[in-house]
Order: sequence, then C-alpha cells, then structure tokens
Amino acid sequence: MKTHPIDKLESNFDSAVMRLKEFLSIESISTDVNKINDCVAAADWVCKELDSIGFSSKKVTEGGLPAVISHGPIVKNAPRILFYGHYDVQPADDLDAWLLPPFEADIIYRNEVKIIHGRGSADDKGQLLTFIEACRALYESTGIPVNITFLIEGEEEIGSPSISNVINRYKDELESDIVFISDTSMIEDNTPTLGCQLRGFLGEIVTITGPSHDLHSGNYGGAVHNPAGLLVQAISKIYDTDGLINLRNFYKDIEDVPFEILKDWIKLDKFSDNFLKSVGLSTSSGEKNRHIVEKIWSRPCMEINSICSGYQNEGFKTIIPSTATAKVSFRLVGEQDPEYIRASFRNHVREHIPGDCKVEFESYGAIKAVKMDCFRPEFVLAQKILREVWGRKCVFAGMGGSIPAVSHFKQHLNLDSMLLGFSRSDDNIHSANEKLDYECFTKGALSWLMILQEMRVNSSIEYEI
Amino acid sequence: MKTHPIDKLESNFDSAVMRLKEFLSIESISTDVNKINDCVAAADWVCKELDSIGFSSKKVTEGGLPAVISHGPIVKNAPRILFYGHYDVQPADDLDAWLLPPFEADIIYRNEVKIIHGRGSADDKGQLLTFIEACRALYESTGIPVNITFLIEGEEEIGSPSISNVINRYKDELESDIVFISDTSMIEDNTPTLGCQLRGFLGEIVTITGPSHDLHSGNYGGAVHNPAGLLVQAISKIYDTDGLINLRNFYKDIEDVPFEILKDWIKLDKFSDNFLKSVGLSTSSGEKNRHIVEKIWSRPCMEINSICSGYQNEGFKTIIPSTATAKVSFRLVGEQDPEYIRASFRNHVREHIPGDCKVEFESYGAIKAVKMDCFRPEFVLAQKILREVWGRKCVFAGMGGSIPAVSHFKQHLNLDSMLLGFSRSDDNIHSANEKLDYECFTKGALSWLMILQEMRVNSSIEYEI
Repeated sequence: MKTHPIDKLESNFDSAVMRLKEFLSIESISTDVNKINDCVAAADWVCKELDSIGFSSKKVTEGGLPAVISHGPIVKNAPRILFYGHYDVQPADDLDAWLLPPFEADIIYRNEVKIIHGRGSADDKGQLLTFIEACRALYESTGIPVNITFLIEGEEEIGSPSISNVINRYKDELESDIVFISDTSMIEDNTPTLGCQLRGFLGEIVTITGPSHDLHSGNYGGAVHNPAGLLVQAISKIYDTDGLINLRNFYKDIEDVPFEILKDWIKLDKFSDNFLKSVGLSTSSGEKNRHIVEKIWSRPCMEINSICSGYQNEGFKTIIPSTATAKVSFRLVGEQDPEYIRASFRNHVREHIPGDCKVEFESYGAIKAVKMDCFRPEFVLAQKILREVWGRKCVFAGMGGSIPAVSHFKQHLNLDSMLLGFSRSDDNIHSANEKLDYECFTKGALSWLMILQEMRVNSSIEYEI
Repeated sequence: MKTHPIDKLESNFDSAVMRLKEFLSIESISTDVNKINDCVAAADWVCKELDSIGFSSKKVTEGGLPAVISHGPIVKNAPRILFYGHYDVQPADDLDAWLLPPFEADIIYRNEVKIIHGRGSADDKGQLLTFIEACRALYESTGIPVNITFLIEGEEEIGSPSISNVINRYKDELESDIVFISDTSMIEDNTPTLGCQLRGFLGEIVTITGPSHDLHSGNYGGAVHNPAGLLVQAISKIYDTDGLINLRNFYKDIEDVPFEILKDWIKLDKFSDNFLKSVGLSTSSGEKNRHIVEKIWSRPCMEINSICSGYQNEGFKTIIPSTATAKVSFRLVGEQDPEYIRASFRNHVREHIPGDCKVEFESYGAIKAVKMDCFRPEFVLAQKILREVWGRKCVFAGMGGSIPAVSHFKQHLNLDSMLLGFSRSDDNIHSANEKLDYECFTKGALSWLMILQEMRVNSSIEYEI
C-alpha cells in the first residue's frame, strides 16, 4: 500500500527544513552585481531540487539573470498548472540590525514562536518550497496528479526586467490553465488569504546636476542652484493637499472599489489597527477619508524609496552638492497607464528645474495593476481546502505590492493567477530579521498538497483539455 | 646702516618659500582623528617660527586641538595688532584628482603662472606666512614697529568649536586695537580686496523617524508615513515664492545694503558672470531682483548640505525608509539671531511632522553675521598701501562665508577685524590641486610689511594708547 501523501509530507518536514536552510544560505541578491554567481547558484539549486522529484529543468536567460523552467510528468486529461516564484532576495543591508546573520538560516524560537530565520525565508524561497515540498510528497507517495510547469525567476526583487521576454519566448512551453503563486501574506495570523488584485508599479531614478562640482556653501550659498533643494521642491510639489497626488490626470483611470467589496474590507479593523501598531505608528498617511485597507489595496500612491545628496559621512560638510538623486516609485491601480504617468512625472520634474541644470531619468520598471477572476473553480476549491487546513474562513484581499510576472501572464498567455501566500505581517520581508513561521511553512505545504490532490479528483468535471 | 625692510623681505623670498614648503608638508587635517599628531606638529612649527623672530609663543588648549598664542616685543605708544589665522587644513579627499601629491608642496609653473602647489597653500598656511614673513623682514632689519600678538588656531576647518573658550580664557593677553586676518580671496586677479562683512552661520542636522523599520513600499505604500516624504515636504515649504525663506520673522533683523555700497557691487558684472560660468551655470538661484554679489555677500540663505534616506547602493530597494536625515545650514546677515532662527526652523519642521513620528535635531554651530568698521584708519591706510603694491584700487567686498573667530573677537573683546586676503578665485581651496600664486605670496607679504611700517609712522597721530 502506498504511503498517504499527507503522511509523506509530514515525515518529510525535517528534511524539507534542511533543504530550505541550504537554499537560504545562497546570497542570491539580484540587485547586487557582485552576487551574480550566487543568483546562478540559486537557479541551479532549484533545477537540482525539481529534477530530484521527477521534473525536467533548464535555465533560460533573456538578457538578465537566469530563470528556471521545469516540467513535471504529463498527466493526461488533468489540469495544467503553471507555478511561478522567485529565487532572488532583497539585500541584507544594515547588518547590525540583524539578530542573527541574514544568510545563516536557522530554526529558532522568537517570542515563543518557532520560526525559520533568514533573508528570503518568507520572500520567496520559503513560500516557493511550500509548493515544491507538496509536489515532493505527492511524487514520493501516490504520484503528482496534475500537469505542473515551474517558472522560477531571479529578478523579481529588481522589477523583473526580463520576465516579459522569457514568457514571450517560451510561450508554448508555459501554456497552462492557471498560474499559482505563493509570494504574498495572510492578512491576519491564521486567516488564509487569496489575492484578488495587485497594484501596478512604476519606478523612476531622477538625478539633478547643478554646479560642475561641490561648492563652498558660504561663498556660493543663495546664488547658485542647489540640486538637493531643487529635487526636494520638485518632488514635494507632487504631494497635494488631502494626501492626493498632484500629477495631471493621475486619477482619471481609476474607479472606486464596489461597495459590496469595500464593506467587507472596512470590517477589517483589527487588521488596520495592527497594521499601524506593528510598525510603531498610530495614524496613517495618504488620502483623507479612505480606509487603510482601501488605501493599500486599491488606491495609488507615490513613495520616495531613497534620496541622496551631499557628504554622507560623520560631521558636516558645508557644501552646495553638485548632484542629488532620488528613487521614487508609484503603485498603480485600475487602468492607470504606467508610461503615461512616467511621462507626467518627468514633465513635472523638468518644469521645476532651471534650464542650465541637468535632469536625468532612469526607468526602473512599469507594470499595470491586475485584477484576478475570483469566481474560477480553483479559487472555489482553494477556499474550501484553506478553511479545512487553517480552521478559518478564507479572505479575498487586495495586495498592495506588485508582481510584474502576473501582468505578463495575463498579457502574453491570457492566464489568470491565483495568489495564495502564507507569510505573516511580522515576517519583516525587505527588512532586517526576515523569518517565516514554521507553522506557515508546514501548513502552507499541506494546503498546496490538498489543493493539488482535489484538483485531480475534480478535474474530469472542472477541466476539459 | 640697517638693511631696508623691503630689501630684506625680497632677499628672504627663497628661504620663505622653503619654510612654507616645510609647513605645507605637515598633514594637519583637523577633521581627521588620525591626524591629531600632525595638528600638534603644525602648532609646534608655528611656535618655533615665531620664536625665531623674537616672539614668545605657547600652545593653549580648551578642549580641542591646540591654538598658538604668541607675543612680539612691546613697543610703547605703538598700536596693538592681533593677527588671527589657522594652521589646520581641509582633507585632501580624492587623491586621484590631485596632479601632484597634496602634502608634497612644490614651486611649479601651471598655465605659465608660477605657483606654490599644496593643500593649505592658500587656506591658510601660505596666507598666514605672508604676515609672518613681513614680521621677519622687519625683525631682521629695522625692528617690528608695532605690538603684535598672534592667535593661530587649528580648528577653523571644523567650525572653530573651542575658539570662543580660548578667546574668553586669554582675554587679557589678546586685548588689542584691531584684528588682522589673511584668510580670504581677492575678487579679481589683481584687485586687492578688503572684507567689510561676513555672513553668520547656523547648522542643523534633522532626523525624522517614522515606522519602526524599513517597510515594503507595496504592502504599506499610501498608508504609512514615509520619513523621506515628510522631510522633503517640511523643508520644501521653507522655500517661499521669489526665492525667499518662509520662516516667521526671518527677515526682520535685516537692512538693505546702502545704495552707495550696492552701486559699487552692481558694477562687478565681470565677477558675477565669471562666478556662474566657473561652476558651469548661466542663471542664479535665490531671491529675485537681487544682484548676485548682493545675494552672496549681504542676503541670508538656506542650503541643504546633505540629505539621506533609504537604500544608498546600486539598484532600487522598494521600501518606505524608516528614517530620513538632512544637514541644513543658513547663512545669516545683519542682526539675525541664529538661536531665534534655529527655534523657528525647528518649530516649522515639527509642525509638518505627524505626532506619532519622531523628530530629532542636532545643533551644528551658530554664529552671528559681522560687519567691519571700514572707516577705521587701518582700513584707510590699507587701501592706500594696497593700491601702491598691486597697482589697482582696493575693493570693499562682502564675504559669503563665515569665520567664527571674527564674531567671537567682536563679542568677547569688542574688536573689529580687517580681512585682507591674497588668494585667487582659482586657488581651489577646499578642493583638489590647491595652490597659491607666487606673486600673491610675495606681494601679500610686501603689502603687510608696508602696512605695519606705516602704522608705526602714523601711530602718533592715529593711535592713542
């Protein structure tokens, strides 16, 4: 008699965590040019793991870091799933802020909770492995019951510059019925959450150059254009009153969230309170008279991600700096067109910089917002399974972040995505001391396993290939 | 028959340059904690030189780097001069930008002009030696005809943090009729320039802290206070229309420059054109309808000296940064009170930051502006001598920078200062390849010698001690 897949999964947990620790030790920081080899090593690691459970993997490169495409065994008359994830991680940055080294993953207890510590544990290596481990348990017991293709990229944290080309180039291989993604969070600790929309993204790096070199601020101050002052003023004028964004036609392609959805969101007061409290704040920024949930899920925003000008070391250097740079990004919703907004932003900045100063822009990604089709049978099935595994009703949530691939799947393959993530709000993704709760890792894997199993059972009804 | 002082000075020039080269080879960088011994060595060098021409020197320390106080022989019924200068220099910074090593001084030809190359040649070691060499020639010929005290400090390049204490502590020893300073520039190549006013200074380091840690800008953007955005908006609102500064009562203690002075300044069009052209610009910033010379010499300003928030390395990190810091300084004029303006600035910033975010300020110096009494007989005498030596009419110029000691001389000793500097605008002070033209060094020394001589001649009329 074959082992039951769930028993197999559970007996595998110890070795699964060892595999995750190995994966997390690879410093696959996509934004750091010194870490290209680590990124390639992470792609190789994914290939090796998938090949060990009956998949056939290859690395593909379309200009940037390699992506992995991997196909499982063909199962006739069964649904076809494309699983998307990413092996790249954010920089560790301020090492002093990490309680343990970021790339020495470990299982520890923090606040009496068993966690997997390490950069990438929640975003996205750990979540990616919930799906792979589900596949492994099936492979090692009753067999993988559906057709699965993996597309695991290495540029998600830098805006996925080449994913569009990869999807286009390998269109035929990637054809599926739906995309599954595990790269998001649950809105509350044990409330399983399906993503029903994702905000779009637009990144811009703007550099102002004024005088030819840094100047003594006594000898020149008050008469020579200061790039830091110009940049600060130009950006500041985009912040309108009432938290709105002052760029022409910025809001024209946005519709309000339908009241039926909004009234469910407004009920999430505990989430909203905790959302602010968990980051040490009590008031929210942005548009007046909008609920926090509405603001982060369904309203656009502009954020200064970084700004830099002048002497950056200890002490004070009384100079007019020669240059100033800001990295600014927008989150977009509805039908907002990133390229139109990019042009508005650039025009706005240019209008505020004198002609003898230089303004340079560098584009850093552009992705339209996406809405999921939450009435698809996979969503209905997932809701049922998630309630079983987590003991609570599943919530359909908006997602404030942006996953470029999701837009490209829709655009190039006409594929809907189902975002099912198991990260928690205190996982510190993109920040120091990233972790994934052990419970999320194991229950996440269990959730995927049960979904895959039942898809097979239902497939003759739900799917016709 | 005694040698004539001018002959003596001229016959000394070769050895004077040797002495300057020795002085310039000492790496007395006050901002660099690794160079404390070099700073002490430079103070010792000044003591030794002054002792060799009949002065009696000592090092005094009031918390920071040593200053030198040195007294010449007493000359009854003769005027008392306090000469102020500094032995410390700016860091050499970008060594690749130096055509010759910064601390290996040499006499070379650059663009067919004979120059003394080296960090500190113009600011201020070379200029300080113009005065010492004038004293030496007098000492070695007819004798030093006036009472001279030197106060040479070693912290000018870091804002003179302990000069106020030194002046206060040695008040009695420093009492004089006037302060002479050679630490400024000529406004045009051969136009001798007397400083008639110096702007004041106020430095502030402001840090805003919002969320407890950096946040994913997708998950939190639009609802969580962004310290970079708050800082940018708060500072930006200080820039009023027409280039004015929007802080309460900011302009109340300022008077316009008298028309008789202003009309001379407005004639300095060549200076203004060159001022912008030499830094690669064609238009000026700041207050509308004010002449450039007026703006840098007699109008206040605010400059962002540095600003920093978020991820500072290559690539893009899509975060809401937890903190943002700016180093901001004001140049002040007239009777503007730095502490009042500091309070206005802080209030303004606080008013623009939500209460659940933290605002921290660090003070970085405060100095009131100073006006010289240009009708004093020493100024009249200097004008006459300078015309003789340089062949052109002397100009009374404002100075955009700030020399903290000058304010303290006024405040603690009620002493006026006469700023007479021989540096040229292309001397690259505070920058790579600093130099002093050989002509400026020798003519500078000659100018001081003749001023000192004639002060003696006229002293019975002009001075009553």
